[in-house]
Amino acid sequence: MSPDRLSTTFAALADPTRRAILARLASGVASVTELGEPFAMSLPAISKHLKVLERAGLIARGREAQWRPCRLEARPLKRAADWLDHYRRFWEQSFDRLEDYLRELKKKEKKHGSRK
Amino acid sequence: MSPDRLSTTFAALADPTRRAILARLASGVASVTELGEPFAMSLPAISKHLKVLERAGLIARGREAQWRPCRLEARPLKRAADWLDHYRRFWEQSFDRLEDYLRELKKKEKKHGSRK
Repeated sequence: MSPDRLSTTFAALADPTRRAILARLASGVASVTELGEPFAMSLPAISKHLKVLERAGLIARGREAQWRPCRLEARPLKRAADWLDHYRRFWEQSFDRLEDYLRELKKKEKKHGSRK
Repeated sequence: MSPDRLSTTFAALADPTRRAILARLASGVASVTELGEPFAMSLPAISKHLKVLERAGLIARGREAQWRPCRLEARPLKRAADWLDHYRRFWEQSFDRLEDYLRELKKKEKKHGSRK
């Protein structure tokens, strides 16, 4: 069974080097050599990461024979963000609870302060 | 090297069964048996998925000896959403471009229509 698109996206993002490559491409197109520069990594190793990103549709590569610049493709990132968005109420709830707690704490401190 | 937290989160999300388990837990706590029911999967296979989710901090399990209910933990999902949010401008840009294109198309149609 071939993995679904969302699984392929998340798997591609599950690596710090690949996320760093996407971060680099967020500031503009780059060649494979340019992308490899910040990493203590061989060009074949970088190429392997690029292939994973390309298969996941997260980057596209130009057709220029020599240079083949890579660019970011954001559509799969949007789908991943949309999926995560269903869970937003859960982390917002926990922040609401924290806020309630801090408000309660402030109230108590005020009370304590006025008794002095 | 142990993988960083974000990589562990994305790796845990890179599986449709694990995402379905999180979706189920979004509607409330559940036992392992309850979580296993919708899948044509053995209990050990489900347990393996739960272990991946637990290691990623995406679920927590109760300490009740018999039942050990699982519940969703949203914090790692928030971190993943925060990371994706840096790329929001890229997919919003492409939608803006699409909108511009549709507006242009409408204008042309109008022109064409008024010539009739």
